[in-house]
Amino acid sequence: MIPEQTTVAPTEQRGHGLFTTGSPVTSWTVRTALPVDYRVRFAPRLLAPDNPALATAGLPAGPGRQRRKRLLLVVEARVHELYGERIHAYCEAQRLDWSCCILLAHERVKTMESVFQVVEQLDRFGLARRGEPVIAIGGGVLTDIVGLACSLYRRSTPFVRVPTTLIGLVDAGVGAKTGVNYGRQKNRLGSYHPAVETLLDPSFLATLDTRHLSNGLAEILKIALIKDRRLFETLDLHGERLLAERFRTPGGTAGEGGTGAEVLARAVHGMLQELQPNLWEKELERAMDYGHSFSPTLEMRALPELLHGEAVCVDMALTTVLARRRGLLDAAQCARILSLMRRLGLPIHHRLLEPGLLSDALADTVRHRDGRQRLPLPVGIGSGCFVDDLTAHELALASADLKEIADPTTTTATATAREAA
Amino acid sequence: MIPEQTTVAPTEQRGHGLFTTGSPVTSWTVRTALPVDYRVRFAPRLLAPDNPALATAGLPAGPGRQRRKRLLLVVEARVHELYGERIHAYCEAQRLDWSCCILLAHERVKTMESVFQVVEQLDRFGLARRGEPVIAIGGGVLTDIVGLACSLYRRSTPFVRVPTTLIGLVDAGVGAKTGVNYGRQKNRLGSYHPAVETLLDPSFLATLDTRHLSNGLAEILKIALIKDRRLFETLDLHGERLLAERFRTPGGTAGEGGTGAEVLARAVHGMLQELQPNLWEKELERAMDYGHSFSPTLEMRALPELLHGEAVCVDMALTTVLARRRGLLDAAQCARILSLMRRLGLPIHHRLLEPGLLSDALADTVRHRDGRQRLPLPVGIGSGCFVDDLTAHELALASADLKEIADPTTTTATATAREAA
Repeated sequence: MIPEQTTVAPTEQRGHGLFTTGSPVTSWTVRTALPVDYRVRFAPRLLAPDNPALATAGLPAGPGRQRRKRLLLVVEARVHELYGERIHAYCEAQRLDWSCCILLAHERVKTMESVFQVVEQLDRFGLARRGEPVIAIGGGVLTDIVGLACSLYRRSTPFVRVPTTLIGLVDAGVGAKTGVNYGRQKNRLGSYHPAVETLLDPSFLATLDTRHLSNGLAEILKIALIKDRRLFETLDLHGERLLAERFRTPGGTAGEGGTGAEVLARAVHGMLQELQPNLWEKELERAMDYGHSFSPTLEMRALPELLHGEAVCVDMALTTVLARRRGLLDAAQCARILSLMRRLGLPIHHRLLEPGLLSDALADTVRHRDGRQRLPLPVGIGSGCFVDDLTAHELALASADLKEIADPTTTTATATAREAA
Repeated sequence: MIPEQTTVAPTEQRGHGLFTTGSPVTSWTVRTALPVDYRVRFAPRLLAPDNPALATAGLPAGPGRQRRKRLLLVVEARVHELYGERIHAYCEAQRLDWSCCILLAHERVKTMESVFQVVEQLDRFGLARRGEPVIAIGGGVLTDIVGLACSLYRRSTPFVRVPTTLIGLVDAGVGAKTGVNYGRQKNRLGSYHPAVETLLDPSFLATLDTRHLSNGLAEILKIALIKDRRLFETLDLHGERLLAERFRTPGGTAGEGGTGAEVLARAVHGMLQELQPNLWEKELERAMDYGHSFSPTLEMRALPELLHGEAVCVDMALTTVLARRRGLLDAAQCARILSLMRRLGLPIHHRLLEPGLLSDALADTVRHRDGRQRLPLPVGIGSGCFVDDLTAHELALASADLKEIADPTTTTATATAREAA
């Protein structure tokens, strides 16, 4: 804290201490910094009864690292159906005093009401303020909800993320953001509250349906398109196989070595590279916002039709065509990108992508980016730029181009997914 | 971000870049820090039509500091009754495109529902993400609600505080905390989100009723008791006069020079000294928690009977007697403290201060302080210590002592306030 000497002579000159005589200080500047330190790591065999990773997750590391005695889990309802018994057996094997809260989590219940449900469980459990990190097991919606509940509870309660979906593994589970939708607005309420530890176990992908795998591939493709040409080449060569094999290496477990592991690690690494210097989004020109300029409005208006990654992919297809029109991409690159999107089971157009929606979406994005478009556009494959001069006319032309490219009979997500399945 | 080389050889040794060959990195640690920089300053004549302070509040400082064009105000309902016309006249005189949202704010509506009301106003106004700090004018409850709404909105929206109550000027308006009650639990949901600027204009105290002045004096007394003997002496000598004169210097404006200004500045300074090195409460032994160990539970159970400062004062009276029993204070000091509390119009006991409530309150405080009591107790007048070994028996004895000291006919807040008026 630096008392500013705006209306008083410096204290030293009076020699009586700050408030002993004369006028008191009348202005202060508080300057400090919040240190943040969090860990993201691959943790295979997470539910193996003898694996201490989950029982010690989020506790202070080091040689004296202790297992927790008490454990509160919040598990997504569908995940609980599939893995509940193994989770319970794990807790018993680790001799934990555990409690498991089951929460339904999808985009339509990504609301403050779900946050309150978690808060009530934290209250009921009698959670200590710092020493008992809550463990959230589920997809991105689940970890975003639990993250916000923990962020708000006693102004900050630690938590651990165990993503069970591909989008959770490479996107929602890796960053610092929490959030819920409010009204028709995507992630309008939230916080920056990273999990103290995120444990990535790709074996959960074995039970994920194809559409949700495609959903996660959209966020991986985003990183490839805007900053990692090598990742794009890998997806182009192996993407369909990874989708079919659910990221498993034949003869191996998901994520253990091989192309699947490389793709996951490159995606996580690329994401963290972007986040680390800009965790609180002080800089609003964010490469990771690629595909997130028009998609928030599209996703919310199309609810429940489009998954998050599907809406992101439609946005990326539109901005790919935009970039093509501006000469930032050549025709072959544009065709190659759109082709890969389709082969990954992702939609490239949606019937709601009309001038009215695009104009509303851009206006909200401009407010979100503090008065400027700061629109990420791809430059070739694997790099990008930011523009501020997009016009409604240009958007309408790109949207019309895209509609023409996309076969009108396959423009909805479900149709596209059906085609890919 | 530091990729940990837990399962791979250092990149340099392979000479192929992180992912070119071999096993990818499988563990990352993100290390960063959020810089926080906020200003608290006395700003007299805030509503004078020619004073640019409010029109420029929260905008980047420096020679090129611009006035804002658009302004969204959230004003507490009672404050709006008293000052609405002057606020509107100010906005007109400053030629602002302004919008004013009126919000009822007291402890019983310090809820997420009130936060949502503010969120809807932010949406309706079409607030830009960073460049249009919201201005909150009201007491501590109002600034805590608006602070939480701004903290959640787009994960962080800047705001400015203009406290209109004494407790707002010296406590709620000065720190980093926002929050609302949840269920029966005080400030259970919240965040650390300091206003970018807080403007302190003590002339608002001219219209504050005596009971609310006493309420603020409780937080000033807290700082005096735990860390500032000189402030205690000043309150002991001049407290009653300050209360009667509403901190005005005869012939002057409130807070402009004189004892009132000194008391306010010492209180703000003392508070900021404690907060600055521990803004996120990483250290749970906090001197500023004095009076806040039993009072959260008491305040919530007695709702709406006790104001926040009144509950804090009952807690301080109890812990003063506790400290006396432990020999940390002598009998004369104890009597002097309790006498000053009464003379400041504050209650020293409450009928709900029974063993059951005290035990529940201590249990919740132990959870809040992560498993230990970390209970601040006064040592003499003007300093304190922390203890972890308080017993239920000791608490019961102190409570009985206090009950005996307090005249049973004056143990409720309203009776005490009536007596003081």
